[in-house]
Amino acid sequence: MLLTVTLNSALDITYRVRSLRPHASHRVTEVSERPGGKGLNVARVLAALGHEVTATGFSGGATGAVVQRRLTATPGVVDALVPVAAPTRRTIAVVDELTGDTTQLNEPGPTITPAEWAAFQEVYEDLLTSASAVALCGSLPPGVPVGAYAGLVRAARTAGVPVLLDTSGEPLRRGVAARPDLLKPNADELAELTGSHDPSRAAQDARRRGARAVVASLGTGGLLATAPEGHWRATPPTRVHGNPTGAGDSVVAGLLSGLVDQLPWPARLARAVALATATVQAPVAGEFDRTTYENLVNVVAVTGEATAA
Amino acid sequence: MLLTVTLNSALDITYRVRSLRPHASHRVTEVSERPGGKGLNVARVLAALGHEVTATGFSGGATGAVVQRRLTATPGVVDALVPVAAPTRRTIAVVDELTGDTTQLNEPGPTITPAEWAAFQEVYEDLLTSASAVALCGSLPPGVPVGAYAGLVRAARTAGVPVLLDTSGEPLRRGVAARPDLLKPNADELAELTGSHDPSRAAQDARRRGARAVVASLGTGGLLATAPEGHWRATPPTRVHGNPTGAGDSVVAGLLSGLVDQLPWPARLARAVALATATVQAPVAGEFDRTTYENLVNVVAVTGEATAA
Repeated sequence: MLLTVTLNSALDITYRVRSLRPHASHRVTEVSERPGGKGLNVARVLAALGHEVTATGFSGGATGAVVQRRLTATPGVVDALVPVAAPTRRTIAVVDELTGDTTQLNEPGPTITPAEWAAFQEVYEDLLTSASAVALCGSLPPGVPVGAYAGLVRAARTAGVPVLLDTSGEPLRRGVAARPDLLKPNADELAELTGSHDPSRAAQDARRRGARAVVASLGTGGLLATAPEGHWRATPPTRVHGNPTGAGDSVVAGLLSGLVDQLPWPARLARAVALATATVQAPVAGEFDRTTYENLVNVVAVTGEATAA
Repeated sequence: MLLTVTLNSALDITYRVRSLRPHASHRVTEVSERPGGKGLNVARVLAALGHEVTATGFSGGATGAVVQRRLTATPGVVDALVPVAAPTRRTIAVVDELTGDTTQLNEPGPTITPAEWAAFQEVYEDLLTSASAVALCGSLPPGVPVGAYAGLVRAARTAGVPVLLDTSGEPLRRGVAARPDLLKPNADELAELTGSHDPSRAAQDARRRGARAVVASLGTGGLLATAPEGHWRATPPTRVHGNPTGAGDSVVAGLLSGLVDQLPWPARLARAVALATATVQAPVAGEFDRTTYENLVNVVAVTGEATAA
């Protein structure tokens, strides 16, 4: 199975209002809820691609119970979230019906106790024994040590399981030094890590810092991949309009899926770009449109070259 | 015991953010939750005054479970919420730390099925047999007939239980015709009901429409009471600054408390004004400051006259 780790899982709530005005009272016209946090989004996309996925991380309180109930109802996803005392955070996306814009309110997340963090690490190491690859995704909740991802990367490498890291800031800086197989930063995260705003140069720097391969997501600019096997650039065939929420998580799912399917790099990148594009174009934020994906996956432009053997 | 009815109960969530900007992403710095909906607020104030209170209405889903857990933890309040399939609504108050202003997002509430509405009416009639007074408070959730309060007022009158009604719009219009003992509209609700913006004239009109007594809450202007026993005006001694959330619910609690304690009208009104003022001045929205209340209750100015016997 594929394993995804979401240490700061969430209940993602979307509200539609006619027009958001600060300091006014608003009647919410539509409410929707789904499990959130990058790793749970990745798990959902992987399952939709036909993979068996196990999702771990933390879950607590009434919001955590809703997240787990929804996760369990997703075909192909096994819920292995570890119970904690404090409630799982909510995120609220307020969609303005007049402008189509979204205002985001993110709760900070539960404080994880040292005992809960230790319990998670045991569960994680146990799950690694049956994982073919693992994705470590998103921010850290309060209480989890800033070097958490470095430890989880090392445990995966010890277990011989390919590990992808998608986080930001200091957890990314610490994590990359533990030598993950694949890093999936966006342009901002890559610039913050390396100090360089040239994505190509920054990606090479990130490899020097420890990542075996780096796939930088450049928004509408597609993906830039730097690996021992070569250098590629993959771009969507048309300029895409829609909601970019979850596009980065679809890139992670595409890369992990391509990795375990042992696709060559250009095909992995095409899968990731097609999934991200199909996510942006989907009517529901964070879902992907299967027809769009299937139409795109063979027409994504991938340029670059393999390293001479 | 005193009975409060909250057909559209809520989980009231308060978020603090540094500064709310539409279309931006915000980190919530502080999250608090409590049972909400007017009748549950009234129940909490009544319990704090030392009354035994039973709170009924509807509760569903994970949010309803949180509401009931918190309610059960409130000394003096008995939870008699009736289970429904759809989840209890949330309300989100986003407090802007820079300006102190609040932006409100209110979910519409669960849709109540005919069977759930019938089950509630049975529970309500059963609770009336041991109630010394009942307050019917707030909006109706989807699925509850617009004439709901009229039916609940009639059932209370049949049971010989004094009944206070605090709602708005068409449910108020229908409810007042069923002859409640006491109506507690604010200035807007009274104007909408009667078409008159003169509170004194409008209150008399509301009595002609069926209310035995009317106490209109006029914000900083205090309370205006019109009853068979006389006419009074009660005003806070000083101009008050603070958060008016829940002040109207404290007025309802003060009036109901004064009714069952058989206080004369001026003392009931003084209690209600002092509670409302202590609520506005409390640091937490919707709570009341006991010291402020005790200092104020004997110095609220009440003018007016009793009807000649």
